[in-house]
Amino acid sequence: MYVVGIDIGGQTSKIGVVDARGTVLAQTVIRTDNHTEVALYIDELAEAVKKVIKEAGVEGHVKGIGVGAPNGNYYDGTIENAVNISWGGGKTIHFTELLSEAMGGLPVALTNDANAAAVGEMTYGAARGMKNFIMITLGTGVGSGIVINGNVVYGHDGFAGELGHVAAVRNNGRVCNCGKTGCLETYASATGVARTAREWLELTDEPSVLRNLDSIASKDVYDAAKDGDKLALKIFEFTGKILGRSFADFIAFSSPEAIVLFGGLARAKEFLTAPIEEAMNANVLPLWKNKVKLVYSQLKESDAAILGASALAWEL
Amino acid sequence: MYVVGIDIGGQTSKIGVVDARGTVLAQTVIRTDNHTEVALYIDELAEAVKKVIKEAGVEGHVKGIGVGAPNGNYYDGTIENAVNISWGGGKTIHFTELLSEAMGGLPVALTNDANAAAVGEMTYGAARGMKNFIMITLGTGVGSGIVINGNVVYGHDGFAGELGHVAAVRNNGRVCNCGKTGCLETYASATGVARTAREWLELTDEPSVLRNLDSIASKDVYDAAKDGDKLALKIFEFTGKILGRSFADFIAFSSPEAIVLFGGLARAKEFLTAPIEEAMNANVLPLWKNKVKLVYSQLKESDAAILGASALAWEL
Repeated sequence: MYVVGIDIGGQTSKIGVVDARGTVLAQTVIRTDNHTEVALYIDELAEAVKKVIKEAGVEGHVKGIGVGAPNGNYYDGTIENAVNISWGGGKTIHFTELLSEAMGGLPVALTNDANAAAVGEMTYGAARGMKNFIMITLGTGVGSGIVINGNVVYGHDGFAGELGHVAAVRNNGRVCNCGKTGCLETYASATGVARTAREWLELTDEPSVLRNLDSIASKDVYDAAKDGDKLALKIFEFTGKILGRSFADFIAFSSPEAIVLFGGLARAKEFLTAPIEEAMNANVLPLWKNKVKLVYSQLKESDAAILGASALAWEL
Repeated sequence: MYVVGIDIGGQTSKIGVVDARGTVLAQTVIRTDNHTEVALYIDELAEAVKKVIKEAGVEGHVKGIGVGAPNGNYYDGTIENAVNISWGGGKTIHFTELLSEAMGGLPVALTNDANAAAVGEMTYGAARGMKNFIMITLGTGVGSGIVINGNVVYGHDGFAGELGHVAAVRNNGRVCNCGKTGCLETYASATGVARTAREWLELTDEPSVLRNLDSIASKDVYDAAKDGDKLALKIFEFTGKILGRSFADFIAFSSPEAIVLFGGLARAKEFLTAPIEEAMNANVLPLWKNKVKLVYSQLKESDAAILGASALAWEL
């Protein structure tokens, strides 16, 4: 049997057919933002799914479809008020129902992107064999998928695992998109790294190659750090420290075997690992000191989103 | 069928025989600290258990024994380095094995006291029917038992749920018994309330009846608040705020239906509820605002520890 994985982002939707070993047999991409009506998007999506199943030569052998989507709710298969999706803002979309219907009744499961990534990592990646781990996705924001006893934690309402919005800084913290201040993702995401750079360039007069740039993205800070720029290195040290302190609190909650890092910013692991581990081990109870592993995703980045979503479908 | 619940504290061990409705049919108490050899304690305990089973008239109808103990590990039935118990410091005691043997092979389950309280609340108390909740015990310290999908979270090593040791204050926080600083329990336990009182009396010259006391316990602050003492009222407001802010982070983790408060300090609910709810709702993501319940334990305090421990035994 085979499964289909769909990763819905604001711009594009990635679709792939996957076998039980995590090999992507065929894949394609469509625009997510061609439509403001979800019905039209679903039509286009179902067409693309059928085409890619055909291309993989597995018609009639597909067990189900797994979908990762922003604000996706596993319990009821809805996408709730997804403001970054052209057809998703201000409403509750019964996504699994719509897609299953368009696919002639094929079962569909849905969750948010970070949970999908956690399932993917457990099924195919760095968390294989682990029953208790926390997946942290370091992208534009900070997402999380928590696995306890082999199951993703969805909580009472399906929205558990919003660790990007715990308080990293309690007072005078940075303003977050969510409306709160001091959230972890305002410091420890790709955007957060760029914010730290802009803030420190303004507040200090430390020399840095970053001063020569018109605008700064996290990639620029990474490149500067690679060239030995002292300010850039300090920025990653600070980012790692903020992450490690929060990880210590996460460990007190669910005592995971490992914390698994994923996403664009996780590529800066040569600068992040040491400060994260140092801050994490300095802030956990003695019983967890140097016991909880920090590991990085092993999924091929181009396939990861599809694999994560597809893994959901095995449980259907 | 019936079960036996045993709650092991530093001074005393409470033993009770419980039926499926949570009625304690017979109970007794022995000293925990009569011995430094665990074998001698186990002998005395097994004798007392047999006696209380006989007294309840249920010999031959006992399904198993549940034990709540400091540093109790559910997975392997051990008590690890329980420094506050005369026979427990510096070693790993295979408690369930020893007790089961002394009881002629009767099955024994063990967990820490806060997890036992959570199981008790789910089986007999305020959390009946709930599948996702967090139990916070506000006693000398702050303990926690986390329930996700109807199961207590034990984590990779059996020690999950140490929410008394998350960072309430990141910088210049109070020194905690665990060796860290700023832990939630240094502020929001009975001890924490007394510390706040002593600190504020020294740092301010605000008038308060508490100034007349030689030494201050949380009970004194409670009594003063009841009499309208402004400083005492402010202390509870501060305590509630610290709790509510941490609860907001817990909600981002597991999205519980409710947070259940238990323990001596929870008796001050008339002063704690408002500030906790205010801080909690000010610090959660919009999707959880005014959605997560704050409830108080419904277990009769004298029976609660026995009930919580006994509830474990139903799963044997």
